[in-house]
Amino acid sequence: MTWIQKDLRLKPRKRGFHLITNEVLSAIPEIRDMKIGLLNIFIRHTSASLTINENADPDVRIDMESYFSHSVPENSSFYTHTIEGPDDMPAHIKASVIGPSLNIPVRNGSLHLGTWQGIYMNEHRNYGGMRELVLTLTGEKNER
Amino acid sequence: MTWIQKDLRLKPRKRGFHLITNEVLSAIPEIRDMKIGLLNIFIRHTSASLTINENADPDVRIDMESYFSHSVPENSSFYTHTIEGPDDMPAHIKASVIGPSLNIPVRNGSLHLGTWQGIYMNEHRNYGGMRELVLTLTGEKNER
Amino acid sequence: MTWIQKDLRLKPRKRGFHLITNEVLSAIPEIRDMKIGLLNIFIRHTSASLTINENADPDVRIDMESYFSHSVPENSSFYTHTIEGPDDMPAHIKASVIGPSLNIPVRNGSLHLGTWQGIYMNEHRNYGGMRELVLTLTGEKNER
Repeated sequence: MTWIQKDLRLKPRKRGFHLITNEVLSAIPEIRDMKIGLLNIFIRHTSASLTINENADPDVRIDMESYFSHSVPENSSFYTHTIEGPDDMPAHIKASVIGPSLNIPVRNGSLHLGTWQGIYMNEHRNYGGMRELVLTLTGEKNER
Repeated sequence: MTWIQKDLRLKPRKRGFHLITNEVLSAIPEIRDMKIGLLNIFIRHTSASLTINENADPDVRIDMESYFSHSVPENSSFYTHTIEGPDDMPAHIKASVIGPSLNIPVRNGSLHLGTWQGIYMNEHRNYGGMRELVLTLTGEKNER
Repeated sequence: MTWIQKDLRLKPRKRGFHLITNEVLSAIPEIRDMKIGLLNIFIRHTSASLTINENADPDVRIDMESYFSHSVPENSSFYTHTIEGPDDMPAHIKASVIGPSLNIPVRNGSLHLGTWQGIYMNEHRNYGGMRELVLTLTGEKNER
């Protein structure tokens, strides 16, 4: 039984949906030693989020940003939490629609993702700054 | 290796988004003994949900309710499941958009949330009644 | 401490929301041996999703499909990822709104779901084909 917890600080990114699979894998190489397990990825912020989506065509990430910014508009008349700017309350809403964490199965030393799945960090603020993730890996190690 | 599971019954709350971080922490003080772990929080209902969002300004919770009640309107012409009232089908939809569970890293005796993160229980019915949560804590204890 | 991981291949289903609780339980009967634990269910695709919702009235599943197809329309003018058909980009968006995984508490040999909760697999493509799930069960076994 293994428990490993790592911090991953992501450099500031522009508003939008960003593929971070390789950064996650580099931050927790101990995945390679696991036979069966789970990786929890948690973002410690309320205006950014994590999801899994298509890892190939970058147009998917562009369309995700377009859709969510359309469906959660800025400057809705009913917003009252507006002092941090027009992108703030929509960012909080998107964070709850998409969610703050992922739980991905680990098998035989790899994340057991589908062929087309990649890990996204979604920056919902115009200038969100550095984002902190926590990676928690638990499971059974390979016998050697 | 520790496994602890607790029930947390939340008193009836009005429709809206409610901060419950302190109730969760009080219900499972064993978090204090953990070095590395995960806390799973699960709501046993289909018309309420759990999320993590801003823990400071109560206006965020008001705007969350306004947004979701706007984006998932009552009385849409295409609803067929209407016998339990106009707030019922929208409550089911919101429950699936936001989700029924959270998985939060534990570190050195605390939930390793970001500074501004709090745990929300979101009541999507007008009169939802008592809500049952299940708290499942697993991880490695501190050595003493 | 037990770790079990199973594959569950779901036969092709039509676009919509489908109750799969019994298929999940049949695929991982080891749940019956567990005293306390968690079941992670993960879908290895980017245009289908998993959620928990009402297990009784099939109208809820029909209305879920109507709502999500209304709120994430096909042929939005801002989509650029369109070569795989008009149902493709909306399917990716719905997958991120609803999410790719579930984490359900296990207690005394059963999934500790609420009375009205069932597990849904949501097919967001018109012809999605077979869908692969990964079931990861971890926890403490009953003493015998």
